[in-house]
Parts: sequence; structure tokens; C-alpha cells
Amino acid sequence: MSKATIAVIAAVSAGAGAAATAAMYSMRKPEQTVTSTTTTAVTTRTPSAPVPVLASQVFTPQTTTAPGAPVDPAGLFEYGFPGPVADLATRQGLVSSFDRRTRNPHWVAEHITPASLSIRDGDRKHSSFLEDPAIPDKFQAKLKDYYRSGYDRGHQVPAADCKWSQGAMNDTFYLSNMCPQVGEGFNRDYWAHFEDFCRRLTQRYPSVRIVTGPLYLPKRDPQDSKWYVRYEVIGGAAPNVAVPTHFYKVIYAEEQAAPGGKVALGAFVLPNAVIPNEKPLSDFEVPLEAVERASGLEFANKLPAARRKRLCAETSCSVMVKEYAERQKAFAKK
Amino acid sequence: MSKATIAVIAAVSAGAGAAATAAMYSMRKPEQTVTSTTTTAVTTRTPSAPVPVLASQVFTPQTTTAPGAPVDPAGLFEYGFPGPVADLATRQGLVSSFDRRTRNPHWVAEHITPASLSIRDGDRKHSSFLEDPAIPDKFQAKLKDYYRSGYDRGHQVPAADCKWSQGAMNDTFYLSNMCPQVGEGFNRDYWAHFEDFCRRLTQRYPSVRIVTGPLYLPKRDPQDSKWYVRYEVIGGAAPNVAVPTHFYKVIYAEEQAAPGGKVALGAFVLPNAVIPNEKPLSDFEVPLEAVERASGLEFANKLPAARRKRLCAETSCSVMVKEYAERQKAFAKK
Repeated sequence: MSKATIAVIAAVSAGAGAAATAAMYSMRKPEQTVTSTTTTAVTTRTPSAPVPVLASQVFTPQTTTAPGAPVDPAGLFEYGFPGPVADLATRQGLVSSFDRRTRNPHWVAEHITPASLSIRDGDRKHSSFLEDPAIPDKFQAKLKDYYRSGYDRGHQVPAADCKWSQGAMNDTFYLSNMCPQVGEGFNRDYWAHFEDFCRRLTQRYPSVRIVTGPLYLPKRDPQDSKWYVRYEVIGGAAPNVAVPTHFYKVIYAEEQAAPGGKVALGAFVLPNAVIPNEKPLSDFEVPLEAVERASGLEFANKLPAARRKRLCAETSCSVMVKEYAERQKAFAKK
Repeated sequence: MSKATIAVIAAVSAGAGAAATAAMYSMRKPEQTVTSTTTTAVTTRTPSAPVPVLASQVFTPQTTTAPGAPVDPAGLFEYGFPGPVADLATRQGLVSSFDRRTRNPHWVAEHITPASLSIRDGDRKHSSFLEDPAIPDKFQAKLKDYYRSGYDRGHQVPAADCKWSQGAMNDTFYLSNMCPQVGEGFNRDYWAHFEDFCRRLTQRYPSVRIVTGPLYLPKRDPQDSKWYVRYEVIGGAAPNVAVPTHFYKVIYAEEQAAPGGKVALGAFVLPNAVIPNEKPLSDFEVPLEAVERASGLEFANKLPAARRKRLCAETSCSVMVKEYAERQKAFAKK
């Protein structure tokens, strides 16, 4: 049995329901995930610098219909390109990609530093939840979809991570940064402690990147032993927004502020459900590949193995509930 | 009540379980789906001509991180772009886009003409089902996922539409052109009759385009009256390939072989389930927007309203079971 397999089985055993279904995705033969070891173009982290994205990672329709063929299937594009369109939004404090089918994001990426968290110019009482006009109307999540649904409008990039400007904080209130989340016991509790854990990482790392998003994971039906994905779809006029079964965070704790240094990687999968505060955060750690298989996304193809560390081996992966609860109280009074 | 709403309600009533869940998606305020009336660059249907795709329809990460911001969320791309990647495959008889999360296609597009269907150089007994090496291994559908799953490897572009060359037919056997389909009563019966209906359209139209793909539609739970999506996930080693609840076809019957003419559009949603042969095909007709809302895709943004007709108003939308059954028998003997 390979070390990778043992690690996965350990994660499954420890993670109970939460990590178990995600980890299944990596029960298959482990494979090389570092597809590129070149570190090319990126030499500066100046915000306005163009971001190098591999041509192979960008979706570009190419047509090479066989010459002499009696048909031209790509002629369809005369009527438009069907998609998927990723609806990439680059806002002040986040970059997001929207899933037009589930009306949730695919992923939302943020960046926090000791300096960014020390600035307190934004206050969430001045922010309002907003439908995202950058998404075509028929694919938008709507405010009325969440109304009386029983679910919180759960920030994927937390508002509290964007206190450095009111504008940046406002940007986190677009519904394209939200998923329906169980409120009490999850969004307002364990998930919030988890977000706080991410912020505390800046006490040790000068730069922390976090990618957050929803998952829709299968569960084995005890009746027929088959695996099924089942999730609710909430909506005002008609079912519109999927309720994820789980959420993931991929955390990149960068040892140096400039690019090129070592990166402590952590991947976590939590169920969209009440989680007791006593549950260790490490129970939800999963191999990065488990999140990749479950989401259909890839998170570190261009990060060479030599630059990777395992976050939970470098630092204690645990939530601090008591301290956080006190801060929440203080926050509510503010 | 608007005409559009009445049409949708009529479709829901007629379509029973099949169209009902799809049609819900268009119960909201109808909107303009023609976003562009320009017909630009497309002046020839020469297969090797470059296909014009609107820049706005192509996924291109753009970064405009605010100057002076203390963070740089798009710096994530240093580690690679998470996706979604559409895995567009352009093969001889089809163009497909693969969904890395469900391991099914998003859509597969084909083109048939009276001439293409008259050539009989390909025979399916010389073709084998193939895992698609163009998809990264961890996102591929595997042959073993289908093995003993109880589901057919259901062609989205039918092999029979690519008889004009053995190579083109072979291309339809990639698993990226397959979804798990109920065999008896569906893939081998009603769905096959439906495919035959599409081919028969070439008796009237000189050029027919068909886009086919899976849907995962919600159903109201009688217990709590909430809407849930529920689908099986089949797999050899672990759950891997989603079993769609429904399938759609969008049919473009072109009145002339050259671009620019009128197009009779038809959109259909069928459940992945046994369908009695007596069921009229017109029961499964839905507004195009219903397929768009359900799939997150768009199918005719660049087709002006003035060029559109409704397929089922132009021709009789019905399957011909008897004739087809005889042909199937002849086919089996071949």
C-alpha cells in the first residue's frame, strides 16, 4: 500500500462524514500533479502586472475540422459559443469564477497579509448584499432565491478579510461570492472559526492565499449501496441556486512575500452542516487531489513539488473557539 | 399572463415529468435572448475556415487589481489557473466540451446533411469504446466506471450519424461523447427513435446541426415540498461518473446549406428513463431558454430573432417507431 493511499485512508477515518466522501476521489492511483516545473514570467507581484496564464489552461475554441469532410460540426459557433463561460470577476479583494449551472461560484480567490488585515477602513454595516450584474440575468443568483430559504448567504471570501477598504468589503457582498450555507452551527460558528484560523496564519506567514468554493459530493445509500449526489435547490420563483453539500478551502501559506518561495499547502473539506466546536480542524484536512477530483478544478499545477510543504505539518491546524466567540461578541456590539 | 408564460405552462402540462422540471427554469420573467444581431465574419462554411467566436464568449482571465491595494488576489495564478477548463475536442464528426466535475460532456455538437448520411463507409463493429486521452487522467471517465454499472455507454453524437467515414465513427466512441444512459426503454428504444427523427429532418432540410448533452434537474420532494437534485454516481474504484437525470437536444434545421438563412429551432428534454414508444415527441419540446437555464449554456445568442422558426411548427415532431424497429433488425443482421 502506497504512502499516499495510507494518507487518504487515514484522512477518511479521521474525517468521518466530512472528508470521507471527498477523499474517495483520491482512492484511485495517485498521479503526478506537478505538470510544469517552469516558473517563467512571474518575477514581480506588482498588482497591475499581467498575470501569466498557460495557454493550455485558458479555454480557446480551436477548429481543425478535417479537410474534405462532408460536415462542419464547428459551424455551430456561427450561432454563438455554448459555453461553459467562467464569468471571471476581478474585484478589489477577490477574483471569482461563477458556475452558471449551480448559480454558485466555482471558486473565489483572496489574498491576505499582516498589513492588509491591520487596516480597518471597512465596516460590514455599510455593505449590502447585491445581485451580480456581471452575470447574465438568466444565470444570476437572486436575493429572493435566498429569502426564507432557511440558508445564510454565506460569504466565500469573508467580509472580515477585506476590512482594508469599504469598497473591497462591499465587493464581497455580491451574490457571486455567496453560497447557501447552514447558518447556526456552521456559517456563524465552525466555518467562522475556520475563517479566523486562516487569518491567524498571517501571524506566521507574510502572505496567505485562500481559494474557497462549494462541492456536491456523493454519499452511499444504505438501501442499495449505490452512490448518489443529492442537494437542495432553493429559489424565489423557481428552484435556482444549488445548496452545496460541502465546502472546500485550499490554503497557500507563503513563506515569503515575494513569489518563488516555499508554500505550505492545506486543503480542507467541511460539510455544509452543523459541526460541533470540539471537532478538530485537522479532521477535515484532505489531500489536495481530493478537492481537485471533486471540483473538477486544479489548484497548484505550476507549483513545483520542491516548493511545497504541508500546512498542517508546519503549523497547528485547529480552530480557537473561545477567543473567537469573544471577538464575535465585541464585533456585534461595535 | 404573458404568451411566454402560457407556452411554458403548456409545455409543463404536456410534458409530464420529462419537460416539467426543465420548464420550471423558464417560469421567471422572459428576457431577450438575442444579445447580438450582427452576423459578422462568417461568410463561408469552408470547414478549415477559422471560426469566429466573440471575445466575450471566450474565457480569458483578466486582472485589473486596484492599484495601491494591499493585496493581489490574482497572484494565485502564479500556481496555475484553477479552471473551469472546457476540454474542447474537435474531432472529425463532432465538437465536444467536457465537464471535469461530472465526467460527462457539457455538450457535443454535430452536423448532418443528406450527403453525409448517404455515405456508408463506417461500421460500428469496427469501433471500440475509448477513454479520452485528451482529458487529464484524474478527470477522465473510465471504461471500468461503466462496467457492471447497469447503464449503457450512451453516445451523445450517435455513431450512426458518422457513417461517412470509419475514422469519424471511431471518434464518436470516446467516452467524452458518452453519458450513462438507461439502456432498455431509453437508449436502445425511445432515444434511438429520437435520433432517427433528427436524421429524417435531412429529408426536408439541407443542413441540420444538433447539440446534445446531459442535465441534472431538481424534483420536488413530496415529503417536505422542497426541490432536490439527486443523481447516481457510478465508478469502478470509486464513484466517478454522474448519471444524468435528463438529456437535451437542441436542433438547428437550416433552410439553406450556406450560412445566413432561416433556422428552424427545436429544444427537447427527455428523462433518462424508460419512455413508452407511444409518447409523442412533442411532449418533450421545451422553450430553448429552459435548456439554457438548466445547463448554464447558451445556444443561439448570435442567431437573430428574424432568422428563427420553431421546428415543431414547421415539421411534425414525432418518432416513427415501427419503421425504426425494422431498420434496427436489419442493422443487427448486417
